[in-house]
Amino acid sequence: MSRGRRAQMETQPASQQAASQQAASQIDFEKNGGVVPAIAQDYKSGRLLMVAYMNREAFEETVKTGHACYFSRSRNRLWRKGEESGNYQTVHEIRIDCDADTILLSVEQHGDRAACHEGYESCFFRVLSDGAWHTVDTRRVDPAKYGPGYGHQSKTAKLAH
Amino acid sequence: MSRGRRAQMETQPASQQAASQQAASQIDFEKNGGVVPAIAQDYKSGRLLMVAYMNREAFEETVKTGHACYFSRSRNRLWRKGEESGNYQTVHEIRIDCDADTILLSVEQHGDRAACHEGYESCFFRVLSDGAWHTVDTRRVDPAKYGPGYGHQSKTAKLAH
Repeated sequence: MSRGRRAQMETQPASQQAASQQAASQIDFEKNGGVVPAIAQDYKSGRLLMVAYMNREAFEETVKTGHACYFSRSRNRLWRKGEESGNYQTVHEIRIDCDADTILLSVEQHGDRAACHEGYESCFFRVLSDGAWHTVDTRRVDPAKYGPGYGHQSKTAKLAH
Repeated sequence: MSRGRRAQMETQPASQQAASQQAASQIDFEKNGGVVPAIAQDYKSGRLLMVAYMNREAFEETVKTGHACYFSRSRNRLWRKGEESGNYQTVHEIRIDCDADTILLSVEQHGDRAACHEGYESCFFRVLSDGAWHTVDTRRVDPAKYGPGYGHQSKTAKLAH
């Protein structure tokens, strides 16, 4: 990640802080226990990259820094996307849905251009065909390179690669 | 909706039934109280149209019929998209994410080509700018045409059009 850029963004003026708080106040976090789904879509291709969750703090940080920050429900803490792998995302646009309970980010995927913790461009690399889920994409990177503690425990042992 | 087509799909052979059950058995519905987020993306443009939820029954019906069927959490029943408005969706492809807890549908939007109950092509018609959410799309249809009982109560009184 460009540390220079992040540092620069973190020192934005108070007005920017107020703006992110104002926008956050209109999101319905309560409906789903304090978090909303946040969808990341590639800003150029439109490919859907991943779905994660944001609490209010993650949303405000994303707006302030311009880097996608989610809330990890399994770890119960902010998840600055790319903090371990370098696969961070810069945000080009933020949309909200009609019910104000889902966020859509248009992002540029950096690092190894793998949004998925399994090393694929997109988390949606399996397609349904004849009653089974088939991997149809090619890995961009072996996530083992990020170290043994990287990512989260997969619960998809049933799904073959 | 083409009733002829739906009727034809509902009489598919038992093998199709078994296939949808097999695929459903690999989805992690338990993680989120029996439902998973289901994202509908336009099959041609890639535009993200809406995010709803599916329980196991909704997923299996979607696979069997080829028409998007969701589970309405507010009404606590199956929601055959377009049943009131005619704005149904035919499904071109179904993907699942790495954690098997989110579904991605590639769909063709029919009827008035408005996936959103507010009459927009997409539910994501508001963009964040300077701390406020701004409507940047044009309505495709006035949903009043579908009758007074159409849609669900909006909880977004704070968000202006």
